Amino acid sequence: MFKFDRFNSIKLTSVQIIVLFYMIAVTVSTILISLPIARKPGVEWTLLDAVFTAVSAVSVTGLTVVSTADTFSVIGVFILAFILQFGGIGIMTLGTFIWLMLGRKIGFRERQLIMTDQNRNTFAGLVDLMKQILKLFLLIEVIGAIILGIYFLNYFPTWQEAFLQGFFASVSAATNAGFDITGESLVMFANDYFVQTINILLLIFGAIGFPVLLEIKEFIQHHKIGETFRFSLFTKITTCTFFTLLVIGAILIYYFDRENFFLGKTWHESLFYALFQSVTTRNGGLATMDVSQFSGSTQMVQSLLMFIGASPSSVGGGIRTTTFAIALLAIFSFARGRQTVKVFKRELDPEDVLKSFVVISVAIMLCGGAVIVLSHSENFPLIYIIYEVASAFGTTGLSMGITPELSNTGKMVIILLMFVGRIGIFSFLFIIRGKISKDPYHYPKERVIIG
Amino acid sequence: MFKFDRFNSIKLTSVQIIVLFYMIAVTVSTILISLPIARKPGVEWTLLDAVFTAVSAVSVTGLTVVSTADTFSVIGVFILAFILQFGGIGIMTLGTFIWLMLGRKIGFRERQLIMTDQNRNTFAGLVDLMKQILKLFLLIEVIGAIILGIYFLNYFPTWQEAFLQGFFASVSAATNAGFDITGESLVMFANDYFVQTINILLLIFGAIGFPVLLEIKEFIQHHKIGETFRFSLFTKITTCTFFTLLVIGAILIYYFDRENFFLGKTWHESLFYALFQSVTTRNGGLATMDVSQFSGSTQMVQSLLMFIGASPSSVGGGIRTTTFAIALLAIFSFARGRQTVKVFKRELDPEDVLKSFVVISVAIMLCGGAVIVLSHSENFPLIYIIYEVASAFGTTGLSMGITPELSNTGKMVIILLMFVGRIGIFSFLFIIRGKISKDPYHYPKERVIIG
Ligand SMILES: [K+]
Ligand SMILES: [K+]
Repeated sequence: MFKFDRFNSIKLTSVQIIVLFYMIAVTVSTILISLPIARKPGVEWTLLDAVFTAVSAVSVTGLTVVSTADTFSVIGVFILAFILQFGGIGIMTLGTFIWLMLGRKIGFRERQLIMTDQNRNTFAGLVDLMKQILKLFLLIEVIGAIILGIYFLNYFPTWQEAFLQGFFASVSAATNAGFDITGESLVMFANDYFVQTINILLLIFGAIGFPVLLEIKEFIQHHKIGETFRFSLFTKITTCTFFTLLVIGAILIYYFDRENFFLGKTWHESLFYALFQSVTTRNGGLATMDVSQFSGSTQMVQSLLMFIGASPSSVGGGIRTTTFAIALLAIFSFARGRQTVKVFKRELDPEDVLKSFVVISVAIMLCGGAVIVLSHSENFPLIYIIYEVASAFGTTGLSMGITPELSNTGKMVIILLMFVGRIGIFSFLFIIRGKISKDPYHYPKERVIIG
Repeated sequence: MFKFDRFNSIKLTSVQIIVLFYMIAVTVSTILISLPIARKPGVEWTLLDAVFTAVSAVSVTGLTVVSTADTFSVIGVFILAFILQFGGIGIMTLGTFIWLMLGRKIGFRERQLIMTDQNRNTFAGLVDLMKQILKLFLLIEVIGAIILGIYFLNYFPTWQEAFLQGFFASVSAATNAGFDITGESLVMFANDYFVQTINILLLIFGAIGFPVLLEIKEFIQHHKIGETFRFSLFTKITTCTFFTLLVIGAILIYYFDRENFFLGKTWHESLFYALFQSVTTRNGGLATMDVSQFSGSTQMVQSLLMFIGASPSSVGGGIRTTTFAIALLAIFSFARGRQTVKVFKRELDPEDVLKSFVVISVAIMLCGGAVIVLSHSENFPLIYIIYEVASAFGTTGLSMGITPELSNTGKMVIILLMFVGRIGIFSFLFIIRGKISKDPYHYPKERVIIG
C-alpha cells in the first residue's frame, strides 16, 4: 500500500497527465512511422524529421517535411491514418473506449482526464458522450470513404488505389489532418466541385466541435418527440463565430485577390476557390491551389484565420473560435460602457472574459516570438514565416512550401507550436500552473493609469 | 439662457472634447504650415501632405512625407517647433496655462478635461500640476538647447545655424517628436557619444511620463527635509517597465544583428548603436543609423517595442508601458493559479487588468488591420509595412524610408494610426462610448469553453 500512496502523492494535475499522454503518443507514433515497413524502399530520413511528422500527425496539423506520398508504404499510410484518428478524436476519447472494451469502470480520476481533454465542464453522461463521439466519427468517416472511393474510380487506375485514396482522404478531412497521399493536396480536384463539397462537409464536421454535434443530435431527438431543446450558449457562440469567419474569410480572400489570383476566373470557380481556402483555414489544411500564388494581404488574412482556429473540443487548434468571439464581445461591451457582457440573452462570466484575453495574449506572444526566432534562423520572406507559424499554431497545416527546407531550429519551433496549438494555450498555461492558491494574504489595492 | 441650456444638453463626454481639441489643433497646424511664409521658395505640396505633416507634428510622431530640412523656411521651423511643443506637452496643459494667464478660474469641467488628457485620477493640485509640468519642460528644453547649441558650434558654420539646430534638436528630443532639420536624423552624430547621451537623456525625460517626474521632484523635496516619500504603484510599474524594455531592447537588437550590422564594430560603437536604437523606440524616433540596415528580426523587435510605446501621461504613444506590464503580470498570476495580481506589495484592481487586455486587443486589431490594408495598397516588403504601422501607432516616427512613397490610402491609414496612438486606445474607445449604463436588466450567467 505504501507504493500506491507514494504514487498518489505525486499529484500530477489532470492537464499535466494529458500532456504526458500526448508525449507518449508522439513517442509511440515516432517509433511506428520509423519502422522500415512503414516506408517505401530506399527512403531515408532523420530522427528530427520522424518526430516532426509524428507531432504533425498526432496534433492533426498536416505540415510535412517529407512528401507523404513518396515516403510512406501502403502499410505506412494505414499507420498514419491510425495516428490521425488517434490524434484527431483525442487520445482520451480513444483511451475511454479502450477502457470500456476492457470492461473496466471509469473512475473519477479518468473522468477528470477526459473532461480536461474535451473541455467539457459537466460530469453528466461523460462515458456515454465519448462513445457517441467515436461512433459518430467512425460513421461519418466510413460514409466519406465509400462516397469518395466510388467517385475516385474515375480518377485512379485500380479500385484498390481509388479506395485507398478515398479512405485516406475521408480520414484526413474528417480529422482535419491535412495530410494527403496525392502528393499535391487537393489541387488535382480544383475543378471538381463534388470532391470539394464532400471535403468541405467533412472538414466542417471535424472542426465545428463535438459539443455542437451532440447538441444537434439531441435537438433532432427532442424535435422528433415534439419537445423543445435549448442550445447551450457555447454552441450558439461557437457556431455563429465559425460560420461568420467562414463567410468573411471567403469574402476577404476574394476581395484582396480579385485583381490577382481571381482575375479571369468564372464566378463559380472564384466562389469555390475562395470558399474552400476559407474553410480550410478553420483547421483543414487541405488546399485546391498553391497558396503562395495569393497576394500578401490574402496570405495575412489566412494567417489570422488560422491563428483563430477551430471550435473548442474539436479536432482543431488555434486560440479557438469562442475565445476570439468572447474577446470581441467584451471589447464591444466595454466600449459601449456596459458593465456586463450580454449575448443571446445570457451574461458571460467575468472569469471567462479574463480567460479569453489571457489565452489570446499568450498566443500572440508565443507566435510573435516564434516569428522573430524564425526570421533569424531561416532565410525566407517574412510572410512565409508568419504563414507557417500561424499554420502550426492553428494546427492547420497550410504552407507556402517552406516546411521541408526549415533548419533544425525552425523544425523544433514548429514542433512546439503544433503541440501547444493542439493542447491549447489554456492547458499549456496549466503545465506551469500549480494548485490554485487560496490567497492566504492580501495587499491594499491601488489603481494605475492604463493606455 | 435657452441657448446655454441647449449647449449643455449636447453632453459631450470629456474624451470627445479632447478629441475635438486635437482635431482643431490639427486643422490650425495644417493652416499654419501651409502658409507660404513657412516654406522655402518653390516648394509645393498637396493638402494631404500638409495634413499628414500636421498630424505627425501634433501627435509628435515624426514620420514625414516631405523632408523637413528641404521644405521648411526658418519661420516654418519655428512654427513646427511650436506645434511639437503644443502636441508634446499636451493641448490641455497649454490650454490650462493660457486660462491661467488670462486670469480665469479653472472650473470643474475644465479640470475634468485636463485629467482625461493626462490620465491623472486624482483632483488634488491639478492646476499646480500643469504649471509644474510646463515649467519643468521649458527648463529642460532651454538647458538642452544651450548645451547642444554651444556644442554644435563645432559642427555648423555659423552660430545662428548652430543654435537653430540646437534649439530644434532639444525641442524635438524632449517632446520625443523625432523631427529633424539635419536632413538625416542623428546619423551625422553616429560617433559623437556626447550628442547621443544628451539626446538619450532628453528622450527619456519626455517619454518616462509626467507623474514619474513629479514624484521624483516630490521625493527630492521630502528627502531634503528628512521625510519619507512613498512612490505610487503607477510610478514603480511604469519606471521598471520602461528601463527593463530599454535594456532588453538593446540586448535583443545586439543579439539579432551581432553577425550583421554589429560585425566589426568596437564594443563602445555597438553599445551606443544598440542602446540608442532601443531608447528611440520608446518614443523618440530619432536614429543614429539607417534602420533598414538591421536584420528582419531586429526590425521586428523594434516594431514590438514601438507598439508598446512610452509611459502613460508622457509625450509618447503606443499601448503604453503600464498596459503591457499589467497584462504580463496578470498572465503570470493566472498561470500560477493566483486569484489576485500582486506587485510591489499592492494588489491590482481587476478592472485595470481587464482595461489592459482590452487596450492591447483593440491595438492589435487596429494595427493588424492596418498592415493588411497597407499590404494591399502599397508595394513594399511586409516588414517595411509592419515597421511603419508600429512606428505610427507608437507615435515613434522611425521608418525604413517608405513614408514619402506611400499611396493616398496609405497616408490616410498612417494619419489615423498616429492620431489613435497619441490619444490612446482608451480615449479612442471612449469616442464611441456613451455614458456608462447602470445595467438596468440582467440575464442568467452561463459559462462557456475557452481556449
Ligand atoms: K490540420
Ligand atoms: K516620436
